[in-house]
Amino acid sequence: MFNFSAGPAALPLPVLERARAELTDWNGSGLSVMEVSHRGKAFTALAEAAEARLRALLSIPSHYRVLFMQGGATAQFAAVPLNLTAPGAKTEYLNTGVWSAKAIEEAGRLGVAVRLAADEAASRYTRVPDRQSLRFDADAAYVHYTPNETIGGVEFPYVPDTGSVPLVADMSSTILSRPIEVGRFGLIYAGAQKNIGPAGLCLVIVHEALLGGARADVPSVLDYTRLAAHGSMLNTPPTFAWYVAGLVFEWIEAEGGLAVMAARNRAKADLLYGAIDASGLYRNPVERTCRSWMNVPFMLAPAELEATFLREAAAEGLTHLEGHRSVGGLRASLYNAVPLEAVEALVGFMREFERRHG
Amino acid sequence: MFNFSAGPAALPLPVLERARAELTDWNGSGLSVMEVSHRGKAFTALAEAAEARLRALLSIPSHYRVLFMQGGATAQFAAVPLNLTAPGAKTEYLNTGVWSAKAIEEAGRLGVAVRLAADEAASRYTRVPDRQSLRFDADAAYVHYTPNETIGGVEFPYVPDTGSVPLVADMSSTILSRPIEVGRFGLIYAGAQKNIGPAGLCLVIVHEALLGGARADVPSVLDYTRLAAHGSMLNTPPTFAWYVAGLVFEWIEAEGGLAVMAARNRAKADLLYGAIDASGLYRNPVERTCRSWMNVPFMLAPAELEATFLREAAAEGLTHLEGHRSVGGLRASLYNAVPLEAVEALVGFMREFERRHG
Repeated sequence: MFNFSAGPAALPLPVLERARAELTDWNGSGLSVMEVSHRGKAFTALAEAAEARLRALLSIPSHYRVLFMQGGATAQFAAVPLNLTAPGAKTEYLNTGVWSAKAIEEAGRLGVAVRLAADEAASRYTRVPDRQSLRFDADAAYVHYTPNETIGGVEFPYVPDTGSVPLVADMSSTILSRPIEVGRFGLIYAGAQKNIGPAGLCLVIVHEALLGGARADVPSVLDYTRLAAHGSMLNTPPTFAWYVAGLVFEWIEAEGGLAVMAARNRAKADLLYGAIDASGLYRNPVERTCRSWMNVPFMLAPAELEATFLREAAAEGLTHLEGHRSVGGLRASLYNAVPLEAVEALVGFMREFERRHG
Repeated sequence: MFNFSAGPAALPLPVLERARAELTDWNGSGLSVMEVSHRGKAFTALAEAAEARLRALLSIPSHYRVLFMQGGATAQFAAVPLNLTAPGAKTEYLNTGVWSAKAIEEAGRLGVAVRLAADEAASRYTRVPDRQSLRFDADAAYVHYTPNETIGGVEFPYVPDTGSVPLVADMSSTILSRPIEVGRFGLIYAGAQKNIGPAGLCLVIVHEALLGGARADVPSVLDYTRLAAHGSMLNTPPTFAWYVAGLVFEWIEAEGGLAVMAARNRAKADLLYGAIDASGLYRNPVERTCRSWMNVPFMLAPAELEATFLREAAAEGLTHLEGHRSVGGLRASLYNAVPLEAVEALVGFMREFERRHG
């Protein structure tokens, strides 16, 4: 079975097997990890080890805090403006797809002034803005962007230079897919259910200079400063998801770290885009320089064939290839836990399908 | 191993064993339930079945909506006032312990006007207010109370009569321990990690007349009306926790439902309180009429013996008997998944310990 789900997505099989082996007896306790106090020594040791592994994998500088928060990126769409702006502050957003647009909408709902420093709606979200075209207001509280758009399959091949303005990145669908330079960001957030672990957990990596400025009326569970002061345990955290995330970090480390992940992810993406571009049946609409390594949307011409494709693919054990319901078409997500063999199987199926239906 | 954790708490062993059996192959999919799309047919069927079971167990009337939200009760401390008050509205809270006080503090942080309709701080949280003494302002947006205080071990033996003012209850540590009459409440919320499932999920049961009145600037993830409109899938929900909750509901149903849970819980609590009251070494400070069935705090005299008690109990496989760090002492939580045999073992150990140290 090869799982191309965009999220909740495939987890590494060794991680699932270990979670299964320990499910009713974790750490020699005779209990499930789901059943132990988050404030006990055993769980706090787990929590600290998970953070230490993440810090090592991403080379997170010591002046950044790591938060393990509840929920996913949608909670952060609110938490970012509530924590990083005073009333009346200006913010800047780059709109490059469905998820950027949702972040922008939520900031607007909260009454925050948003300027679009770039808007790719006119390109139908098939590209990112030119690096040289970007201009930012030095008075903005932050610049927000989405390095990888999960639905559009559009990815920034560069990190925007925002000068002294903190750069905030929704890395939900790209974090841990390759090395990054954390020091270029003011704040990074990422829902877990792609490259980290089960849904219900969200990582936040924040420069400590950005703490302490939350509005007085931010709900406690969204308050970075309070979460940081309590080691992400202001209240009961999602302990099982945190545990699985720790296993995933351990797996990445054992596989060789993020450089190895990057090489594998590059190879998987190249294989699939190559097959699409070489075919007369499949098409990816994104400009080549900003195609996502993680999420590959593609369409069939004629589109009527898509239902047949999905049915026949599922019969071959290739699952979750539907495009997002908001855009249709097809999509293969190639997160860390998707092996090269899965992409080889998909490409083989696509060629065979084209031979029969093309 | 007998686990008396206050939360995350013991889960029924058959639930854990089934989760283990299905962990890498759920529902014949060849995938973990953690790896499938929350919008796919298989998961939405699971989600709907879980809600249907919960509705049957609690006899939830059709004009109540059930929400499966991220996080725990602490998020609801903010969500309740943000959803149920307009700016300038008045609210009433009953302060009967640490968790009531936290709910009150959060409402205050958000700028909501709070009147304490009762305050048991003077009794050191060892009782609940007299039923007849309660007076509520008919203009209040709601009355909030905590039917069971997890730390103090204090429980309301009655449901306050608030007339036409909606009654809001934090049932985190009492839900599903016995039948309740949902129709007496405007809103019930409950963090999962006691009687429902893994941490990271929170149930909200809300009268539909209370929807639609959220403030314009409530974060989307805390907006009951938006959650209800999207079947609790405004964004990716905590799918694994939802799945385990469904298994717990199925287990309660198979055991005979909430009347059976109530009889068992009553018997467990009676056994433990009886042993405490009959001893010269142990003491429970709560007035007898309002002692919790779920959380039984007790102290030793002399208190110096408590560390020895915990060490020797752990050696006998009796774990998580520490009192909450804010109050010290000892505590045994007797949620649904804690069998009578666990309480018998605890009581036996307590007698033996008293014989040796008393």
